[in-house]
Amino acid sequence: MTLADRWLLPEGVDEALPEQAAKIEHLRRTLLNLHESWGYHLVIPPLLEYLDSLLTGAGSDLEIETFKVIDQLSGRLLGIRADFTSQVARIDAHCLKNDGVERLSYCGSVLRTMPSGLDGTRSPIQLGAEIYGHGGVESDIEVLSLMLQTLSSAGISNLVLDLGHVDVVSGVLTTCDLSNEQESKLIELYKTKDLPELDRYVDSLSLSDAHKQWLVGLPRLCGGKEVLGQAAELFGEVNSSINDAIVLLKKLSDVVCQRFPSVGLHFDLSDLVSYSYHTGVVFAAYVPGHGNAIARGGRYNNIGEVFGRSRPATGFSTDVKALVALADVVVSKPKTVISPICSSDALWKKVNDLRSEGYRVVEVLDDLYSGCADFKLDFVDEAWQLMPTQN
Amino acid sequence: MTLADRWLLPEGVDEALPEQAAKIEHLRRTLLNLHESWGYHLVIPPLLEYLDSLLTGAGSDLEIETFKVIDQLSGRLLGIRADFTSQVARIDAHCLKNDGVERLSYCGSVLRTMPSGLDGTRSPIQLGAEIYGHGGVESDIEVLSLMLQTLSSAGISNLVLDLGHVDVVSGVLTTCDLSNEQESKLIELYKTKDLPELDRYVDSLSLSDAHKQWLVGLPRLCGGKEVLGQAAELFGEVNSSINDAIVLLKKLSDVVCQRFPSVGLHFDLSDLVSYSYHTGVVFAAYVPGHGNAIARGGRYNNIGEVFGRSRPATGFSTDVKALVALADVVVSKPKTVISPICSSDALWKKVNDLRSEGYRVVEVLDDLYSGCADFKLDFVDEAWQLMPTQN
Repeated sequence: MTLADRWLLPEGVDEALPEQAAKIEHLRRTLLNLHESWGYHLVIPPLLEYLDSLLTGAGSDLEIETFKVIDQLSGRLLGIRADFTSQVARIDAHCLKNDGVERLSYCGSVLRTMPSGLDGTRSPIQLGAEIYGHGGVESDIEVLSLMLQTLSSAGISNLVLDLGHVDVVSGVLTTCDLSNEQESKLIELYKTKDLPELDRYVDSLSLSDAHKQWLVGLPRLCGGKEVLGQAAELFGEVNSSINDAIVLLKKLSDVVCQRFPSVGLHFDLSDLVSYSYHTGVVFAAYVPGHGNAIARGGRYNNIGEVFGRSRPATGFSTDVKALVALADVVVSKPKTVISPICSSDALWKKVNDLRSEGYRVVEVLDDLYSGCADFKLDFVDEAWQLMPTQN
Repeated sequence: MTLADRWLLPEGVDEALPEQAAKIEHLRRTLLNLHESWGYHLVIPPLLEYLDSLLTGAGSDLEIETFKVIDQLSGRLLGIRADFTSQVARIDAHCLKNDGVERLSYCGSVLRTMPSGLDGTRSPIQLGAEIYGHGGVESDIEVLSLMLQTLSSAGISNLVLDLGHVDVVSGVLTTCDLSNEQESKLIELYKTKDLPELDRYVDSLSLSDAHKQWLVGLPRLCGGKEVLGQAAELFGEVNSSINDAIVLLKKLSDVVCQRFPSVGLHFDLSDLVSYSYHTGVVFAAYVPGHGNAIARGGRYNNIGEVFGRSRPATGFSTDVKALVALADVVVSKPKTVISPICSSDALWKKVNDLRSEGYRVVEVLDDLYSGCADFKLDFVDEAWQLMPTQN
């Protein structure tokens, strides 16, 4: 290994030097304080767990993204968490056992085998919040509002919010009564948005004209708020789960318009990407010029079922490092004082009094000190006194 | 996998539920603020790195403790960090390149293959501080003082500080001019403290009586401050590195007595355990009733050499989770307000104003709310008003 190699970090792995680290820490505290002020309790799940627990209920994408190691103590496979959600579900189901609503928040490192997200990272600092134990639209509204408030508190503007609901696609497919093979083919076409091929394929199926219109119309239901009206018109009153989904989306979009009027709204009713474990409304926030979402959430009922407790759940998460890269985080710096080496009791006491009062006091150990200082400590009139520096 | 299995965490791995998590977060902020007030800059090294970088200069113990995974992108071996020191050395050597003194601090999760530390953990939250670029006693004094101040700020009392210096053992062995085999045997006997066997073995060597006295006397140099006088007497003026080490220990112990008079001092001049990469003074803090150190540090010059920059370095680290377990951390809770669901603009505004003012405002989503509340929001006289609750 050469010298230069030792400096290199793996692809998608980065470190934060003092200026950026101060911003990350500042934002972390700001956002966790925000979540606390909304009534969310911080939990700290472990960085590694038995793989079976970690992947429970979470879909096969997460399995591919999870680094695995062998536990030398038990011989079993462990995973380094790639996501917090199944850990928080386990905590809600097993450790807290609250019958009512449980609001939990978290912030910590996750690792992924492959780059993902805004900046192709494999080591985001994931921050998120979840509500367990409430299945109504009110908890969807709360979590979505908290996500937008989180991004706003981080200083992110120009947001576009994508809204969708997994019941629309599944309602359409169920109503059309397709074979498994046909469903898989259609889902693939919805994912790739290959509309000409979709039209040809649907035309080849032996279905009623109405159902064919549904199947080809669905991926074209993307755009602004007008999409919800178009969807209601297309699907009529036939399928109650589709109708309920559209009513829910309408409610959510009304709340967003009212509470966060500067946020752009976008609907894509056939979107299925990245929502593997979701069961209801799904949402993602974007900023112009970036193809990946900066925050993402939705409803995922019953994720705790495998831990013995099936509860409704809704939540969101974001990456603090990505937010710092996008936002203009300003960290207020304490006043800096330079001090000679504390060789007397009096100076040691003075220095620590100043530190308790909020000053940053640096003992100057050599003559190479190059940092900025607002004050220096001088021995004047038989006492150590704070004197302004000249710079 | 049974239901109960899914709940289990691997041995030495734990999670923090709300009450404990709030304490950990509170202590984390308190201690990072303390380090900032001393002039230390936070850095956030990555959780995973190329194994070669991570293990550089750090001794073979760390290799055994480090979880390894294969990088699917490069095919190379990666390690999950088991310690921060070599990462911070890399940052000092390669990223910051400051010629003068660099003060760095860090706080984050590390993972270890085997349980260690106070509570047999494999997933501590390591917090520490390091000074690069200064080789004198002043930086040893600063780092040691900061460690004791850190523990004091965490609310840990009844501390005993172990002090030692690696030059004492190496100076004695060098002066006695032993074979490699003899040195290894003696080091093993010092580690196991098997004094009768040591006496027999030293007696069998063909050495001068003075040197024999040194070798058998060394592991008996443990106890209070009187040990330094006994050491000076035993070794005389023969070996300058031993003398320098004793002078340094005397200075450090004087400073500790002066600045932290409640801390008990203990010297063990043959202690070699757990200081694999250290090159000078070593220290560890203990609390009564626990065999493992709660904080540990010392000098480790030239650790950055493999990254192309050989600099003096001294630092310490501790585990925030272990501190929380020992200390009585009190987290002040914000006043809690319960609010009906925000279905009007006026209530939404009132709720968020209160949150900005420092209240924790919880929207009550169902009739199972069981938390404590200091206030509730009622609509009185045509406005939402804060009313005290009865409990």
